[in-house]
Amino acid sequence: MSNVETLSHPVSEDALPDKSRQDKCGVFGVFNHPDAAALTALGLHALQHRGQEAAGIVSFDGETFYSKRSAGLVDKGFSKKEVISRLKGNMAIGHNRYSTSGEVVMRNIQPLYADLAFGGFAVGQNGNLTNSHTLRQELVQKGALFQSTTDTELFIHLVALSQKNTVHERLADAIAQVKGGFSVVACADNQIIAARDPHGIRPLCLGRLDKAWIVASETCALDIIGARYERELDPGEMIVINDKGVTSIKAPDPKSKRFCIFEYIYFARPDSFMEGRSVYAARKAIGEQLAIEAPVKGGDIVVPVPDGGTPSAIGYAQQSGLPFELGIIRNHYIGRTFIEPTDKIRHLSVKLKHNANRAFIEGKSVVLVDDSIVRGTTSRKIVDMVRQAGAKEVHMRISSPPTMYSCFYGIDTPNTEDLMAHKYSVEEIKERIGVDSLVYISLEGLYKALGKEKRDGENREYCDACLSGDYTVERTDFLANKTGKRVTALG
Amino acid sequence: MSNVETLSHPVSEDALPDKSRQDKCGVFGVFNHPDAAALTALGLHALQHRGQEAAGIVSFDGETFYSKRSAGLVDKGFSKKEVISRLKGNMAIGHNRYSTSGEVVMRNIQPLYADLAFGGFAVGQNGNLTNSHTLRQELVQKGALFQSTTDTELFIHLVALSQKNTVHERLADAIAQVKGGFSVVACADNQIIAARDPHGIRPLCLGRLDKAWIVASETCALDIIGARYERELDPGEMIVINDKGVTSIKAPDPKSKRFCIFEYIYFARPDSFMEGRSVYAARKAIGEQLAIEAPVKGGDIVVPVPDGGTPSAIGYAQQSGLPFELGIIRNHYIGRTFIEPTDKIRHLSVKLKHNANRAFIEGKSVVLVDDSIVRGTTSRKIVDMVRQAGAKEVHMRISSPPTMYSCFYGIDTPNTEDLMAHKYSVEEIKERIGVDSLVYISLEGLYKALGKEKRDGENREYCDACLSGDYTVERTDFLANKTGKRVTALG
Amino acid sequence: MSNVETLSHPVSEDALPDKSRQDKCGVFGVFNHPDAAALTALGLHALQHRGQEAAGIVSFDGETFYSKRSAGLVDKGFSKKEVISRLKGNMAIGHNRYSTSGEVVMRNIQPLYADLAFGGFAVGQNGNLTNSHTLRQELVQKGALFQSTTDTELFIHLVALSQKNTVHERLADAIAQVKGGFSVVACADNQIIAARDPHGIRPLCLGRLDKAWIVASETCALDIIGARYERELDPGEMIVINDKGVTSIKAPDPKSKRFCIFEYIYFARPDSFMEGRSVYAARKAIGEQLAIEAPVKGGDIVVPVPDGGTPSAIGYAQQSGLPFELGIIRNHYIGRTFIEPTDKIRHLSVKLKHNANRAFIEGKSVVLVDDSIVRGTTSRKIVDMVRQAGAKEVHMRISSPPTMYSCFYGIDTPNTEDLMAHKYSVEEIKERIGVDSLVYISLEGLYKALGKEKRDGENREYCDACLSGDYTVERTDFLANKTGKRVTALG
Amino acid sequence: MSNVETLSHPVSEDALPDKSRQDKCGVFGVFNHPDAAALTALGLHALQHRGQEAAGIVSFDGETFYSKRSAGLVDKGFSKKEVISRLKGNMAIGHNRYSTSGEVVMRNIQPLYADLAFGGFAVGQNGNLTNSHTLRQELVQKGALFQSTTDTELFIHLVALSQKNTVHERLADAIAQVKGGFSVVACADNQIIAARDPHGIRPLCLGRLDKAWIVASETCALDIIGARYERELDPGEMIVINDKGVTSIKAPDPKSKRFCIFEYIYFARPDSFMEGRSVYAARKAIGEQLAIEAPVKGGDIVVPVPDGGTPSAIGYAQQSGLPFELGIIRNHYIGRTFIEPTDKIRHLSVKLKHNANRAFIEGKSVVLVDDSIVRGTTSRKIVDMVRQAGAKEVHMRISSPPTMYSCFYGIDTPNTEDLMAHKYSVEEIKERIGVDSLVYISLEGLYKALGKEKRDGENREYCDACLSGDYTVERTDFLANKTGKRVTALG
Repeated sequence: MSNVETLSHPVSEDALPDKSRQDKCGVFGVFNHPDAAALTALGLHALQHRGQEAAGIVSFDGETFYSKRSAGLVDKGFSKKEVISRLKGNMAIGHNRYSTSGEVVMRNIQPLYADLAFGGFAVGQNGNLTNSHTLRQELVQKGALFQSTTDTELFIHLVALSQKNTVHERLADAIAQVKGGFSVVACADNQIIAARDPHGIRPLCLGRLDKAWIVASETCALDIIGARYERELDPGEMIVINDKGVTSIKAPDPKSKRFCIFEYIYFARPDSFMEGRSVYAARKAIGEQLAIEAPVKGGDIVVPVPDGGTPSAIGYAQQSGLPFELGIIRNHYIGRTFIEPTDKIRHLSVKLKHNANRAFIEGKSVVLVDDSIVRGTTSRKIVDMVRQAGAKEVHMRISSPPTMYSCFYGIDTPNTEDLMAHKYSVEEIKERIGVDSLVYISLEGLYKALGKEKRDGENREYCDACLSGDYTVERTDFLANKTGKRVTALG
Repeated sequence: MSNVETLSHPVSEDALPDKSRQDKCGVFGVFNHPDAAALTALGLHALQHRGQEAAGIVSFDGETFYSKRSAGLVDKGFSKKEVISRLKGNMAIGHNRYSTSGEVVMRNIQPLYADLAFGGFAVGQNGNLTNSHTLRQELVQKGALFQSTTDTELFIHLVALSQKNTVHERLADAIAQVKGGFSVVACADNQIIAARDPHGIRPLCLGRLDKAWIVASETCALDIIGARYERELDPGEMIVINDKGVTSIKAPDPKSKRFCIFEYIYFARPDSFMEGRSVYAARKAIGEQLAIEAPVKGGDIVVPVPDGGTPSAIGYAQQSGLPFELGIIRNHYIGRTFIEPTDKIRHLSVKLKHNANRAFIEGKSVVLVDDSIVRGTTSRKIVDMVRQAGAKEVHMRISSPPTMYSCFYGIDTPNTEDLMAHKYSVEEIKERIGVDSLVYISLEGLYKALGKEKRDGENREYCDACLSGDYTVERTDFLANKTGKRVTALG
Repeated sequence: MSNVETLSHPVSEDALPDKSRQDKCGVFGVFNHPDAAALTALGLHALQHRGQEAAGIVSFDGETFYSKRSAGLVDKGFSKKEVISRLKGNMAIGHNRYSTSGEVVMRNIQPLYADLAFGGFAVGQNGNLTNSHTLRQELVQKGALFQSTTDTELFIHLVALSQKNTVHERLADAIAQVKGGFSVVACADNQIIAARDPHGIRPLCLGRLDKAWIVASETCALDIIGARYERELDPGEMIVINDKGVTSIKAPDPKSKRFCIFEYIYFARPDSFMEGRSVYAARKAIGEQLAIEAPVKGGDIVVPVPDGGTPSAIGYAQQSGLPFELGIIRNHYIGRTFIEPTDKIRHLSVKLKHNANRAFIEGKSVVLVDDSIVRGTTSRKIVDMVRQAGAKEVHMRISSPPTMYSCFYGIDTPNTEDLMAHKYSVEEIKERIGVDSLVYISLEGLYKALGKEKRDGENREYCDACLSGDYTVERTDFLANKTGKRVTALG
Repeated sequence: MSNVETLSHPVSEDALPDKSRQDKCGVFGVFNHPDAAALTALGLHALQHRGQEAAGIVSFDGETFYSKRSAGLVDKGFSKKEVISRLKGNMAIGHNRYSTSGEVVMRNIQPLYADLAFGGFAVGQNGNLTNSHTLRQELVQKGALFQSTTDTELFIHLVALSQKNTVHERLADAIAQVKGGFSVVACADNQIIAARDPHGIRPLCLGRLDKAWIVASETCALDIIGARYERELDPGEMIVINDKGVTSIKAPDPKSKRFCIFEYIYFARPDSFMEGRSVYAARKAIGEQLAIEAPVKGGDIVVPVPDGGTPSAIGYAQQSGLPFELGIIRNHYIGRTFIEPTDKIRHLSVKLKHNANRAFIEGKSVVLVDDSIVRGTTSRKIVDMVRQAGAKEVHMRISSPPTMYSCFYGIDTPNTEDLMAHKYSVEEIKERIGVDSLVYISLEGLYKALGKEKRDGENREYCDACLSGDYTVERTDFLANKTGKRVTALG
């Protein structure tokens, strides 16, 4: 194959803030370590769950920037010794990309790099901007040439056009112009710059490994390299890491904290800590709260829908006193499309991934615990499978409130109108997925499980827009129109 | 890259019965279904845990045989619709290959096919022969040309040279000449032939899907296609499946049953049934027995070493009353070698796969449950990791007796002299992996957990050679010498 | 392999007008044909000799632009039906890239495309700019982000920043700011725009195929699609092809014509016509003139150095009356590096491509005819080979005057100081390549062969800078310095 | 892509002596040179015109055999230094494979290798057996397993089954059982064995390079490595090259010499010598004879159909006194299928490769010289192209007699019934290809040009079966039936 890139959709369309562009990603950075690129590859591996589409690393050796970006998993692009050894320098940043769009376009893989008037500038971002389309249109009118369809490129153009003197001032200038939920890691000259959006929607933490400083989306990426956790960045905080150490620059206009509540429910790795709290412990607590709110009378066993539902199911089981069993066995090998030839066997698809553990299901009243119901089709198939394995009753318990609204700050959810919980009542959903009972944890219960007395209005500390519809940042792009002509790059 | 094959070692050396040749594999066959190849691909996907090195399918449409073999996972070689649609016919056999040797050689991927005097003959095998080297030498002396280094090719030569009239008689003739533990599935003309070794060491079962007959290594491969389990083949039984149905041919000289006990401990998928018993249930029962035999005084939590130790850990927890927690979080993404650049970071390798769940480990007396200790290096790293996460005490419980002897019937284990349990006493192993206590389940306890009153000498029903040293089949190859010249095919 | 791009040298360095960046390329465009992309692929195939590094096509269907760019030959990237069928639309432009740099970088493959404020804009260029570095620095200072290292990207930025209203006025605006020798083909909205540099250094012609208009670097690209030759563009002329037909816009400040004389000597395909003259006929005429200027007393046979010297050798043979023989046989297969293992066999390299036809060389006085001597090393090896085949005498005749100066308008020649004819006298070169006599055609004789009475100073009509040192366009970049930091993209 | 092999046709069908299996190939061998593999790669490169489908090298270092086989050109598979350096040893054999079948099957790429009772045995063959199907059936009945569809594998089985003691006696035993035209090169233990078929239909020569011995299909392969030509092998001769030097073993039952006359017409490289005669000189002599037999009254220029017709055209021009001109320009880049999208442009295919040189064709009476007319379709297109370029008259002269019969000794020709000259008279062919006159050289004239007084019946020295129908070796396979079942290996 020739090394061509293929776009499956027009560029201009990508410029819209639609779902296909939304990035749930991982970022990582190292300052002052002789194995900067190797550590970054390890960090990205630990953050792989935040984005499997592509990965990239840019390193800097004080003179030259080295960049390697690759479609697919970190392990695919960075497992070879020679790749790492060519990424020279004692500072590096890395990025895992997540995307729902079918094809990977090389020019969208981060970190992005540009040779600006002041020198090289590399940047990676986890999150999503809500005024990217508007900004992009303004910049194009001024003659800016966009090469990618990621929001992240906006940071490069805004930094390039900024009239400020230093790189971090230019980046602050850029951040002041964008809206949304994002964590940014940049490398320029002899410094690593990291910043969190004003509300702190997306996570970002700081760690230490000997004399090196580390920034990462999650603490599990500190663990993998044996780094010590220092602290999280504050909402709106920017840190500049250079030979003088870490300098913190607070946001000029502080906003209220609104950390993404879905990181606890589904997104973060269970072994990570967020806000000083164990994610696994949070999930167990949610399961316990769920058991209190929604016990199952006559239930025999608690069965997680693997792997997302497992910690909550353990919590539910411990709280309820029912035995926890792996009633659904997951096949860790990915199976794709080989059952397509005929309709007769197409219905088998769910079994590519899961199989009922019949010996423990048969004749039982099963409490299934899952973390969410998005479109409902998978849930239906799992319930059917459990029933076919002989379950007497199937009760579904969900460790999040109904996901009724689309997220615009970096979590990939369907458009609001496609969300099952937006279209149907809980009773209707119960019918559609075919369970004997269905209960979601309450929004208040969720806050309670997270140690809050109650969901406290404007002081609520969490962004729960997808659950409540109370959006943290307004979307200025909403009414923007698509423009002009499009290009489909076949390669 | 040109489609070349590369051998890393001389061919003749491969012909020795060393470990690198030993096959823990999966076999599957379909007779009389319009989607035979698609069902076989699904079946192999369900059996993927039995062999990830390569996969192959041969189908037959009554006139022509179609063959596709591919290195890597089933999903890689068979996910494309066009591949399946080119594998025409309503009967097919498939094979998953397992091997510890570094490189995959196309000619070793099964099913093997040959154009014999009576027509085409395709065969796949799960297991290992103990007289293969001797037989191979005899055949080479007679002018036979070997193309692969698998034991399976012996079946083809022996069938080709047999003086019997029918294909199944020729195969029976071949089976009479080989020794070892194996399950064979063959396709010739308009029939599928399946056979199990005289002691029934390796598993093989029969299922039904509408008018089609299915053979498979495990029942989970029946489940994935929605087939009904019929029965297991008896030790030494051969079945011929053709238009007239299923004909059973019993072994002429019946041997005592000796089913591989390690299928229960580690090998089979937990959702499979063996001998009518749920593998998951068996593992839980082993964990319960282990809790009875080896309780931990003052233990706080039961933590499985994922994923192998999970069912036993659940059993241990339920029996002991201690809480079951995911104290070690597994990263489902595979990380390889990107930490090699310097020694300083090489020690991080264990963290590519596992991370301690610090919030639940810190200050606790942890009962770690694993299915086996082979070389001990991984166990040591996991224990270290758990200690670094703050465990007060670490107690290891193993759901198998010590693996002290090498297996020659199809399970890949190190040579006897490299097995930790062969070299060291339990007390020494305890020291080496650094735990506060270490207990393996007893051999008698294992039989008990499997529902036997005791391990009954010659009537013991299971092959437990790797645990007891009581080999089921003698190894005639043992003293055979290597011969002559070697070829290293670079491609 | 992942689809990564690899840069072997820093980006900023590329920005210098050094030789490695110089483009001898081919351009092609189609307006108003249902098979626009297929015709473009054919045209690029006919122009393959102008650039083998990479090829690209951008098509436009009135709404969407489609782009496919691929490293290697046209045939590699565009032979598949599905590629062509995805390049929809009835207008398209294409580009063959030539480069001496080792590796191909996807982002340098033309046509380049950008989504500008007025819509999509695609452009390809054959030639070289002499003020590109200066312009680039100015644009970077203004915040422009460069993505490629080709001169061609300058056109895009200049068009993006132009204040003119229409696309062709913007392009004219851009052309007014650049200096050098170039032919440009662009596609924007519903038009194809083509332009030639003010002196007409690089070729560009217009053709017609039914209702379609074609632009191409050479007429052989019209022949391959069966198109009728219409005319060449004038120096400095721009044509706009749209639904209203072809509109010609003359250069505002006309310059004297200076067509590249090397197109006749070496560059163009022999079956092309330039300025209405057959290139093959021109080469034969040069050979005839050479025979008049430099006969070989006692010569036995005329032997071309294949393939460049063949037409001139035929002319020489016919004029001199000596027999024309293929005394050197060319191996059309490309051989590369497999003789490297030891020094002993490294000297064999010339034989990978050529072998002496001993039966016709032995004992003969051989007149070798070649089109040029660049570094002299190949000539030396060929002469040695001819002598080893038994030639009595070897006389070299060259169908161009000595190449003493580097070209800056699109022909890839070594730096002036590396040119053999710059460093040595003809007598010295004769010694170095080991011939009995060596004569180049005279500059005056060359003009005579091309039908001119004499080389007429400022009215000389041809750019012969590489032969005379009389440069057509000044090089403003000459003293520009390299800037700042560099990036090496490993992928 | 996984390294799978794909067969486009059933194996059993391949076993028939049909055209798709016929091999025009190149063989090469080196004994006693430290760069044996590198020299072999060079030799195969020089012999590339004899087979472009695949290439392979087996080397031997006194202990181990090393094998690398690769689809495509030698340059593709063997250009990398590391490949050559892994092919250790001071002896090696190589093979270029030619085949008309669409896809390349790894197991058919030679040299083939097998681990026989006496040690390793590698063999490559240029030619074709006429009793291969019969032999194959006999061997299969005896239980032999065939892995490839090449005739060459027969040599391996016959050697494996031979009761003789030494390898060369076993090979002689094998040769005694096969019929056809072939040259064989084998490597076993510490010797290279080479042999020519009893009639010497296919070429094979011996050369010397310092202390090394070389065998090669053509002398051009000696030239490329600087080796000295020693002699051709005699028909039926076998030579054994080992530490004691070269031992010649004559055929036990000598046959009359019948060297393939088509090697002179078309097959061999013009710079090779066959039977001590320059192939280029032979072709020129044929062109001269053609000019004597078939002058063109009023002809203006002689134009070769490149590249096959060029030497004969030069001979024709010199004899006739007409000017030789490159009236058809060949594009050396290969163009394939990109004109398929619509019928409208499909007729352009001939122009992918050739273009008329209009300036020299227009208004002329053109004498086209070609080496053969096989199916006639290409000739028709070339004539049309010449006429469209304005030729007044087109006269075709062919440097071979009509090819009326299919070859069964290694030259790939269509089946007899598809040969134009078999189906139509010369007058009819003239009409079909649209020329003003058409003359083939006479068979007697061809012998005359090769220096024979006349074609002397049974003493005719050349195999001219394809021209005369007088077959040299009978085809015992002719009536053999296809058997049984088939396999289509998709991979």
